[in-house]
Amino acid sequence: MKFGEVIKSADFKTEKHAPVIEAPEKIKSEELFEVEVSVGKEIPHPNTIEHHIKWIDLYIQYDEDPNTLHIGRYNFGPSINEPIIKTKIKLAKSGKLIAVSYCNKHGVWENSKEIKVEV
Amino acid sequence: MKFGEVIKSADFKTEKHAPVIEAPEKIKSEELFEVEVSVGKEIPHPNTIEHHIKWIDLYIQYDEDPNTLHIGRYNFGPSINEPIIKTKIKLAKSGKLIAVSYCNKHGVWENSKEIKVEV
Amino acid sequence: MKFGEVIKSADFKTEKHAPVIEAPEKIKSEELFEVEVSVGKEIPHPNTIEHHIKWIDLYIQYDEDPNTLHIGRYNFGPSINEPIIKTKIKLAKSGKLIAVSYCNKHGVWENSKEIKVEV
Amino acid sequence: MKFGEVIKSADFKTEKHAPVIEAPEKIKSEELFEVEVSVGKEIPHPNTIEHHIKWIDLYIQYDEDPNTLHIGRYNFGPSINEPIIKTKIKLAKSGKLIAVSYCNKHGVWENSKEIKVEV
Ligand SMILES: [Fe+3]
Ligand SMILES: [Fe+3]
Ligand SMILES: [Fe+3]
Ligand SMILES: [Fe+3]
Repeated sequence: MKFGEVIKSADFKTEKHAPVIEAPEKIKSEELFEVEVSVGKEIPHPNTIEHHIKWIDLYIQYDEDPNTLHIGRYNFGPSINEPIIKTKIKLAKSGKLIAVSYCNKHGVWENSKEIKVEV
Repeated sequence: MKFGEVIKSADFKTEKHAPVIEAPEKIKSEELFEVEVSVGKEIPHPNTIEHHIKWIDLYIQYDEDPNTLHIGRYNFGPSINEPIIKTKIKLAKSGKLIAVSYCNKHGVWENSKEIKVEV
Repeated sequence: MKFGEVIKSADFKTEKHAPVIEAPEKIKSEELFEVEVSVGKEIPHPNTIEHHIKWIDLYIQYDEDPNTLHIGRYNFGPSINEPIIKTKIKLAKSGKLIAVSYCNKHGVWENSKEIKVEV
Repeated sequence: MKFGEVIKSADFKTEKHAPVIEAPEKIKSEELFEVEVSVGKEIPHPNTIEHHIKWIDLYIQYDEDPNTLHIGRYNFGPSINEPIIKTKIKLAKSGKLIAVSYCNKHGVWENSKEIKVEV
């Protein structure tokens, strides 16, 4: 069994588990920019001890690159911390940002966003 | 782009990045048993600040269950901590254990192991 | 030996390792507000594979409460992700936010901020 | 307020929250050895969604060294994964291993163990 088979995806506007990535469409190589990753942006997800979003992982897959870089993992303490984060990153070249998130009741979810980097 | 497309897999006997899961073939429902997850069991992976296995995630996908449970994430401090861990878990029913690991130079890797649980 | 003995603290305006917490002075009980935690706000800290801020932990110690709650842990992938994060939290009552951060070369650092919560 | 002030410690034989570190008394410099860190070894701690040990951190404070190294963080999925781990580490010189653990209801706990390393 492959991990990819159990990761779910959906439109975040209709499915509260789908993570969302917000970033500028165009950025400059190796220049810091702000990225926001969140779950429940449109339809809030519950945030209780029994049912919550535990973490969001952010990766970058550069175009024509065999590997994948892990940008960050953001763990949210249940009921206190909402699954939303703004942080600053810098990229070398164009690629896809991939967000993976985890609900303790409804499993693993993903989303991606293409990023154009001007070299 | 799907995260599953960038996760690599291979035989751990010939590829040093593939995680390995060791567990009894048969276990009893809700009884603790020992599981070992590791990277580089057969062919050691480098462990330096510049090049190392940063973490291993362990999941259980129960058979005929729409969701996936995150068992644990084990983060290894570079050069000091080898990417190997023995821990104790208990499962409700049969399914597949999935290990996902990350090398800071060679990306995300996975492996899975079927577990028969006697109810 | 106690962990507290090895955690360092300093004025973030003169020491680049000290984490900083930014939050409103007064908030309302159980209402979400934005908090920013960062390292190197005044004097940037290096961000390379060899030398970087690996994570920041955020805790709340409520006044006259015997326990401490872990709000979140934010892990930053070296060289790509700056050690800064804005997120949303809600608190039940007044207390102290505590940030703990880790530099892979210079150890563990901390800072705290008093938060008044109107019940 | 200092983080050290809110970290609790106790004899693990009478207090179920205190983490325990098990390692050889004497080891050789830069040689891998097995270390076990756990919570609830003598008196089991509950492991439910509502009340569980969420993680254990392991650090090394070398003697006469100004800094502290983070060896690993082991996160345990509630109810499935017991807070116990065996892993392999190597140390450069003598010092103290420090374990810090977190119960989602009863806060942060610590313990330490002196390790003699033959250079
Ligand atoms: Fe959910
Ligand atoms: Fe590698
Ligand atoms: Fe530093
Ligand atoms: Fe407890």
